Amino acid sequence: MNLKSYLKERAALVDDSMALLLQDKSVYPDVIHEAMRYSVFAGGKRIRPVMCLAAAEALGKESSHLLPVACALEMIHTYSLIHDDLPAMDNDDYRRGKLTNHKVFGEGVAVLAGDALLTKAFEVLAGFGCAAPAGMMPIVLQVIKEIALASGTNGMIGGQVVDLQSEGKEIDTKTLQYIHTHKTGALFITSIRSGALLSEASEQELTALTGYAKNFGLAFQITDDLLDILGDAEKIGKPVGSDIKNGKGTYPALYGVERSKILALEAVEEAVSNLKALPGYTKPLELLARFLTDRES
Amino acid sequence: MNLKSYLKERAALVDDSMALLLQDKSVYPDVIHEAMRYSVFAGGKRIRPVMCLAAAEALGKESSHLLPVACALEMIHTYSLIHDDLPAMDNDDYRRGKLTNHKVFGEGVAVLAGDALLTKAFEVLAGFGCAAPAGMMPIVLQVIKEIALASGTNGMIGGQVVDLQSEGKEIDTKTLQYIHTHKTGALFITSIRSGALLSEASEQELTALTGYAKNFGLAFQITDDLLDILGDAEKIGKPVGSDIKNGKGTYPALYGVERSKILALEAVEEAVSNLKALPGYTKPLELLARFLTDRES
Repeated sequence: MNLKSYLKERAALVDDSMALLLQDKSVYPDVIHEAMRYSVFAGGKRIRPVMCLAAAEALGKESSHLLPVACALEMIHTYSLIHDDLPAMDNDDYRRGKLTNHKVFGEGVAVLAGDALLTKAFEVLAGFGCAAPAGMMPIVLQVIKEIALASGTNGMIGGQVVDLQSEGKEIDTKTLQYIHTHKTGALFITSIRSGALLSEASEQELTALTGYAKNFGLAFQITDDLLDILGDAEKIGKPVGSDIKNGKGTYPALYGVERSKILALEAVEEAVSNLKALPGYTKPLELLARFLTDRES
Repeated sequence: MNLKSYLKERAALVDDSMALLLQDKSVYPDVIHEAMRYSVFAGGKRIRPVMCLAAAEALGKESSHLLPVACALEMIHTYSLIHDDLPAMDNDDYRRGKLTNHKVFGEGVAVLAGDALLTKAFEVLAGFGCAAPAGMMPIVLQVIKEIALASGTNGMIGGQVVDLQSEGKEIDTKTLQYIHTHKTGALFITSIRSGALLSEASEQELTALTGYAKNFGLAFQITDDLLDILGDAEKIGKPVGSDIKNGKGTYPALYGVERSKILALEAVEEAVSNLKALPGYTKPLELLARFLTDRES
């Protein structure tokens, strides 16, 4: 299979679904819906939604009915980017080569656009649950709870808080690990697990897919750190070395470039090894993990 | 019955429940949990949680099991206050006589504390659903969806966006009404409806309680307008109506102070009339509405 065309096709499905969910085009006040769509359609790779759908496929299940859940995960990811970019946080003017939300709509609307995407995510998840067969409702509620936990202070927000507090300070490996596993890793894990839980995964299947997601997250973060040092600014859409400039510890800073590359590859192999025993189509998840260490942005 | 002692007793129940839900005292990173608790325990009257519980009682149902839902509503209200106070929004240094969240913890943590309370609210709601009897799960999912809708761009956030965009401008009555019904009214309505839906209200009972909440919101708004105007008049050297937003398009500006007082009283009577046909204990909701027009802050 060709990962690029698979990702493109999946991203198109997610985008279509997302456009329907965010179609309040004519609803007053327009600016907030415009601001939400601006960041949602700013060129994200849709990795989290794709992981959610691919988890179902890895279990041999149908995935298209999970599109609303996949979109909700992307909304949460997008809200976190909008808030991270704010002057009071990372103070970034550009993301993926485009002006950040607050540079276009102002800080007030950017805060509210993030709030609105987070709120919309739970509206969509609850709506998915309302339309689900009665027997699936306990699982949907469990998934909503897991997504909230992964996005909260013991997950993504916790990681962002520590990241924020580490600015301009030297941080140790433990702190760096905490930031990565919480700020990015938690949402990867919950994306995979949502797809798995809603496909009625067995305990072993759930453990395997969770193991995949943990290692995926680790490889993703090391690669991000490496790109930040080695990548070119045009491809990643933000100034190279900006994390370093902000005084943040990274894998290359702690372990050196070559050792970091090896650690990333090891994490990918570990991720992929978790897929072996699954009954469905696991190729997309495998290639997704391998693609990570090869990507240029 | 004595409303003051009823409110005090109910607020204490809510506070105890809230303290348990937000007890991550030792969980790293502490600052975010401290920031969340700072604003949650900053002296709110707990009107929304009380309305949720009182709706159940008005239907003759047990209310104490609804405490998590009541707390989730207060978390959403508190998050909205933290974000409203930010420099990019209303830029307020004080609320209820205490420094605002960002003045104590900094803007970055304040944004995240708001995000975290919103996220926690949905975690609590989903957790409530997970623990509910299977037959109640469709209703819990419906309630989560309603709360998200009331908090989103067609509810509370929509009101805040229009409020933000109206700053320093003359606004017409329609815009003022939009801000009030969305920024404040939507969450009152969903608070009442959550309690009613989870108490398995009939269609008529739901309509009656929704009617109560709408009129409650209206009376609350007129009283707010009156308090603003009368407050201004007492300030020597500051002409009444110099603050365009508070002076123009408000009830007192449109109808005069005396007529506005009558309109507020009429809204209270209309609210209370909705309670007549309900089978349970409606006194708290009745007194809560009457208390509104007598309050001084």
